[in-house]
Amino acid sequence: MRIIGNFLRSLFFLNTLLLLIWPDLQAQIPPESKPSITNVSKSGYPRIMPDRSVIFRIKAPNADTVKIQLDKRYNMVRDTGGYWFVKTDPQVPGFHYYSVIVGGLSAADPASYSFFGMSRMASAIEIPEEGVDFYKPKDVPQGAIRTRWVFSTVTGEWRKIFIYTPPQYEQDLKQRYPVLYLQHGGGEDQRGWTYQGNLAYIMDNLIAEGKAVPMIIVMNDGYAVYAGDPVPEQVPNQRSVEAAFAGFKDMMLKDIIPFIDKTYRTLPDRENRAMAGLSYGGRQTFDLTLPNLDKFAWLGGFSGGPRISPTDNLKSVYSGVFADAAQFNEKVKLLFIGNGTVEGNSPVETADILRKSGIKNIVVYQSPGTAHEWLTWRRCLHEFAPLLFRK
Amino acid sequence: MRIIGNFLRSLFFLNTLLLLIWPDLQAQIPPESKPSITNVSKSGYPRIMPDRSVIFRIKAPNADTVKIQLDKRYNMVRDTGGYWFVKTDPQVPGFHYYSVIVGGLSAADPASYSFFGMSRMASAIEIPEEGVDFYKPKDVPQGAIRTRWVFSTVTGEWRKIFIYTPPQYEQDLKQRYPVLYLQHGGGEDQRGWTYQGNLAYIMDNLIAEGKAVPMIIVMNDGYAVYAGDPVPEQVPNQRSVEAAFAGFKDMMLKDIIPFIDKTYRTLPDRENRAMAGLSYGGRQTFDLTLPNLDKFAWLGGFSGGPRISPTDNLKSVYSGVFADAAQFNEKVKLLFIGNGTVEGNSPVETADILRKSGIKNIVVYQSPGTAHEWLTWRRCLHEFAPLLFRK
Repeated sequence: MRIIGNFLRSLFFLNTLLLLIWPDLQAQIPPESKPSITNVSKSGYPRIMPDRSVIFRIKAPNADTVKIQLDKRYNMVRDTGGYWFVKTDPQVPGFHYYSVIVGGLSAADPASYSFFGMSRMASAIEIPEEGVDFYKPKDVPQGAIRTRWVFSTVTGEWRKIFIYTPPQYEQDLKQRYPVLYLQHGGGEDQRGWTYQGNLAYIMDNLIAEGKAVPMIIVMNDGYAVYAGDPVPEQVPNQRSVEAAFAGFKDMMLKDIIPFIDKTYRTLPDRENRAMAGLSYGGRQTFDLTLPNLDKFAWLGGFSGGPRISPTDNLKSVYSGVFADAAQFNEKVKLLFIGNGTVEGNSPVETADILRKSGIKNIVVYQSPGTAHEWLTWRRCLHEFAPLLFRK
Repeated sequence: MRIIGNFLRSLFFLNTLLLLIWPDLQAQIPPESKPSITNVSKSGYPRIMPDRSVIFRIKAPNADTVKIQLDKRYNMVRDTGGYWFVKTDPQVPGFHYYSVIVGGLSAADPASYSFFGMSRMASAIEIPEEGVDFYKPKDVPQGAIRTRWVFSTVTGEWRKIFIYTPPQYEQDLKQRYPVLYLQHGGGEDQRGWTYQGNLAYIMDNLIAEGKAVPMIIVMNDGYAVYAGDPVPEQVPNQRSVEAAFAGFKDMMLKDIIPFIDKTYRTLPDRENRAMAGLSYGGRQTFDLTLPNLDKFAWLGGFSGGPRISPTDNLKSVYSGVFADAAQFNEKVKLLFIGNGTVEGNSPVETADILRKSGIKNIVVYQSPGTAHEWLTWRRCLHEFAPLLFRK
């Protein structure tokens, strides 16, 4: 016991000594670094350096290892006081999800706000983009994001929807507005465009500058299982993904669109109805709209365009809607296909196929230097929205 | 090496054997249990048993220990596939925060939605309350929760505010409405009343039943640091708490209330302006309103009433506002003081002191069997709102 006592005392002494001589990382916050705007209020970490590297701090006093998963996996280094630190490589601008990994548990960082992404509440960091403010709040007239519950007869449940109304909406009760239905991607939900996408800032700013027509934007949870069907857990296999989305089209056509046209001052005709989505939401957009062009005239896919390959016979995809170019061109005022350049060149390839067969009104946009994530989609919306509902 | 190899092989064999004979907890989901409505979509865990005990499941394959902190700390038991399980004691109904503890990191459960509470994004579970539906969505006319950004000159920043407008608000542009300013407590923010409190359901239901006057409700972040002042980290010492809230009163009076009266169709006089708050928000309510009774006529504190003790001279607390009962009674139409019975008897005691000195219009409410948490505050709102703005 005495030996152990001595050992503990010497450990204590060593520890005290270390505390005195050890550089205290907390006291040494690099003055040129700034807390991320995605931090919970007043949290000093994570911090972003001028070169866009990120310093993370996690308190996990009993952990053997702590890792940060951002663009890659970083091993954290144990510091005093139960804290672990790491500085990452420089990051590209934009909104990036990240995880803390302890004991094999991949969790959100308590120091950051969480967002529904990766099929769970996930931490994220916003790396500032120099000189760009189209997705930031400005002193312009503001629309509002409303949250509403709608009962879906198709899925047999109350469903929360997010609705953007433009600043003008409450000024003149006689005015009616066109509607954009806008979908999230896999592993996210109806909140994504508001919280990750900064949709309200983007639209308020575009409308204030006269660059976009005032419009209503409706955002639904794309996961929709038919009432009575078994609810698949969100596991990453194609079958469960398909099942999880199976009721979406019917729900939109039978429940959501009628509800919106009944409840809000919409212009309820096809010329004033658009739909777009990102990633899986792009797929849902074309699956829903192309067989229903009597209801939609403006279409967009962000990192998720129409699924067409150069070897396809256009008569056999999407029920042949692209095969009759004249009819398609008359009906579809806009077919917008966008992605990030890091994702590859598929929007250009898709547009080539369609243009060769006479399809017009195609707009391709590629976001420079961004991947399959939110800065790509913010930019896509910023390019797409100004084109909508033009005569 | 060979010995180690043999050892590993036998371990592998043992493990395979265990996999064959071990009861697979996942396959043995108790059929009488139900996933919590606070789970991320389609997540099967946590599950609630009919006796209100909760089964948690966490994936942390490399952890030595995993704990759940709910009403108390529960040690989880390792199962196959990297999963850990535990069944808790039966819980009281209501909305309870909980944490997963791995390696000393106290984190949110990836299987649950997170809410801003405990000064971070925290998991929560909703234990159903038999036969009670005043805070659930019903098929009644719905108001909307709007999120807006307001620039505060006092704090020098854009601030997000949540605004409930009643179902009637968009039907008749000439109608004006009274306003309730409603605050959260420490470690939470302006989202609390919407997400944890279910405010929109409570108000929609009350208004639909004719039990509450249609009103606008404005919810702000109570943390407000004067522009230029150092931002304290949210650490639990009294000094930093005071500093974190220092600019609140000025911000409300100079920025928020004028903005609301300018932007929304309010009835902008004291008879049509109420304020209430829970916990620290109750303290903020009385600190702000009692010296400003020219601006407020209806006051509420939920688990946070006026800070008065039996030994106080009423002339020396709150600038003596309670000392002139006649004047107070004329100005204050309602002084509502509520809490949960588990929290003790302070609302009754405070009311006794005030009534003895002639203060009228006091309503005391105690929520049966609930503690310092959200079911207490939902019930308080449900009792408080019907009393407001009555002639």
